Amino acid sequence: MKVICTQENFKKAIYNCERAIAKRNTLPILNNILIEADKGGLKLSATNLEIGVTSQIGAKVEKTGRITVPARIIGSFSASLMNNGENIELEADSEVLKIKTKTNKTSIKGIPADDFPLIPFKKEENLLSLSSLFFKKAVSKVIVAAAINEARQELTGVNVKFSLEGLCLAATDSFRLTEYKLKLDSKNISKDKYGEFLEKTNSVIIPVNTLLEVSRIISDESEEKLEISIEDGQIFFETDGVKLVSRLIDGKYPQYEYIMPENYKTRIVGEKKVLQNALKTAGIFSSGGSHEITLKIDDSVKKIFVRSSSAETGENVTELKFDITGPSLEVVFNVKYLLDGINVAATDQVAILFNNETTPAAIKEINEKSGEVLNDFIYIAMPIKN
Amino acid sequence: MKVICTQENFKKAIYNCERAIAKRNTLPILNNILIEADKGGLKLSATNLEIGVTSQIGAKVEKTGRITVPARIIGSFSASLMNNGENIELEADSEVLKIKTKTNKTSIKGIPADDFPLIPFKKEENLLSLSSLFFKKAVSKVIVAAAINEARQELTGVNVKFSLEGLCLAATDSFRLTEYKLKLDSKNISKDKYGEFLEKTNSVIIPVNTLLEVSRIISDESEEKLEISIEDGQIFFETDGVKLVSRLIDGKYPQYEYIMPENYKTRIVGEKKVLQNALKTAGIFSSGGSHEITLKIDDSVKKIFVRSSSAETGENVTELKFDITGPSLEVVFNVKYLLDGINVAATDQVAILFNNETTPAAIKEINEKSGEVLNDFIYIAMPIKN
Repeated sequence: MKVICTQENFKKAIYNCERAIAKRNTLPILNNILIEADKGGLKLSATNLEIGVTSQIGAKVEKTGRITVPARIIGSFSASLMNNGENIELEADSEVLKIKTKTNKTSIKGIPADDFPLIPFKKEENLLSLSSLFFKKAVSKVIVAAAINEARQELTGVNVKFSLEGLCLAATDSFRLTEYKLKLDSKNISKDKYGEFLEKTNSVIIPVNTLLEVSRIISDESEEKLEISIEDGQIFFETDGVKLVSRLIDGKYPQYEYIMPENYKTRIVGEKKVLQNALKTAGIFSSGGSHEITLKIDDSVKKIFVRSSSAETGENVTELKFDITGPSLEVVFNVKYLLDGINVAATDQVAILFNNETTPAAIKEINEKSGEVLNDFIYIAMPIKN
Repeated sequence: MKVICTQENFKKAIYNCERAIAKRNTLPILNNILIEADKGGLKLSATNLEIGVTSQIGAKVEKTGRITVPARIIGSFSASLMNNGENIELEADSEVLKIKTKTNKTSIKGIPADDFPLIPFKKEENLLSLSSLFFKKAVSKVIVAAAINEARQELTGVNVKFSLEGLCLAATDSFRLTEYKLKLDSKNISKDKYGEFLEKTNSVIIPVNTLLEVSRIISDESEEKLEISIEDGQIFFETDGVKLVSRLIDGKYPQYEYIMPENYKTRIVGEKKVLQNALKTAGIFSSGGSHEITLKIDDSVKKIFVRSSSAETGENVTELKFDITGPSLEVVFNVKYLLDGINVAATDQVAILFNNETTPAAIKEINEKSGEVLNDFIYIAMPIKN
């Protein structure tokens, strides 16, 4: 193998692959990144057998070939590369990778590529595509509610439901639930294929780690599309020269729609920051393992009281002058679950909607201009029953 | 106790005290901050019996009194306070502190102040004063070389030598050594007293933690003076309403001056960033527990080679086009020790000075304009003998 490419591209390809390396690998070759040069250019791959990532970059290939080198070493090395437009030259036999820049010569001991596991590749055309940044935003809004505990595998993933209108992402650990609706532009759908797909599949469960990796690969300035395909129990993502494949989680996702109230009786609307601050302060004095705090909505004095008290530390109450619509109410929450929801809401004003002290409450975003409640994002928190 | 002050001042006073709380306290009251209101205003104090901090703020005292409350609770609480010019009202009996803002009412359970240890106070006038920021800068340049291991107590502190010209700060863990000379303006010295002091004491050892705390209290925009006094084996710092007292470390600091070469035969000068980068890359392939890398200064080709190799990972060499004065040389270093020195040098260009492959090398700063080697800062690294 002998290849020349820019330092910047090589650095980015390493960055994209690096995290697919599992933390504890019994198989030494899984600690390595596969570097391949063929007619198409330079291709770097890594896999932890759950997620596989391949990053393709433009390169002048003088001699094809492949090798694997430890991700830790090549990762630290690539961190020293500059984004100054200069080139890097890679040359390898099956066991040593030699890297040359204008001022640096490095040899890294590798393992022959023959034992590197095959990363599954997509056989058919893409199913759909959408804005990378919109997808990244959707992921960031829902994953907070996914379960960390693996007792129920399906809750450790994000449920994605497909329809002609778009994707509906949801996550729940059974204490709270998030849902975010992502619209699809019909011109970004492979119509026949998507229609056929919808007849068989309309819901998958994607591991949270997979979504975090996809988000990480999407730069915050990305203007690229994200292509998505689903084949044989695996999901394929592709954007800006990077392909990521992951297993899907087997299992049936709970039919959470039933717990989402259709209407609400009481609504409060106010500044996100003020509410965050009041909840953080209340959290200091929340009691018990369930971090209880009380939200008292008092329509008679047109105020909301965020209250907490604990036998050990003391007590606390913050008054909020929020808009109140509907009857007064007093509800107890785990402060952490409420704060998580407020934190992911992205608008300056937020709404919390209630029916009574025992049914789920909903956090929603507020349109900055019209003041209307937005419905693409919803975070449901279960009250604590006293 | 009943007091009114601004939220901002209260928050700052808590910040200044918070860290003097020890991590593991057997005495519960040492987890608390002492809050005292007297004629002079509001005073917050904390101590871990090694360091004591007192922060005095302006306040309207309606009723004097004192209480102690857990630093963890009042610290989290104060983080929610705003810098919006609004006031906070504190009211306490001996066991509960009540805090009121416009929108929040909080009670924190405390411990009566009677058991709080007495924080030593300075009896005489100040010894000297200097720019807070200059002192903070001096500390940041030397502490990197102090020992972490407590086998030799005196090496876990910074040696400060006093003279009419100024302070000379030094630290060493016996593998490397830093020294920084801080000039004194004679008008900032309490002349008679300082002269008298110099007759008895000209060198103290200050614990690294104490210096870190003093640095933390000095804001990066501080224009205040730092007052320093030494009485009865204790050092007193005072700046901007905050007093910090600490024990000094007993013991005799090694006479490190003897290992500092007076002249050097070989000198290299070049860009700090380029050298940092080369050393970081070399570090990846450094071998053994002593992280060996080699600096080869080759005057015949007018280049420096930073080299490393390890049986497990591979090898690496970076070429640097630095200015070389004096004979060629090849020296082996622990890359970490060399990097620490380069990192604290604050100029764009740095110099390394050598005599031969077994004697100490010196890192110095370079005047940006004149290109001259500066002598107020020096970092000595011992080569590894092969």
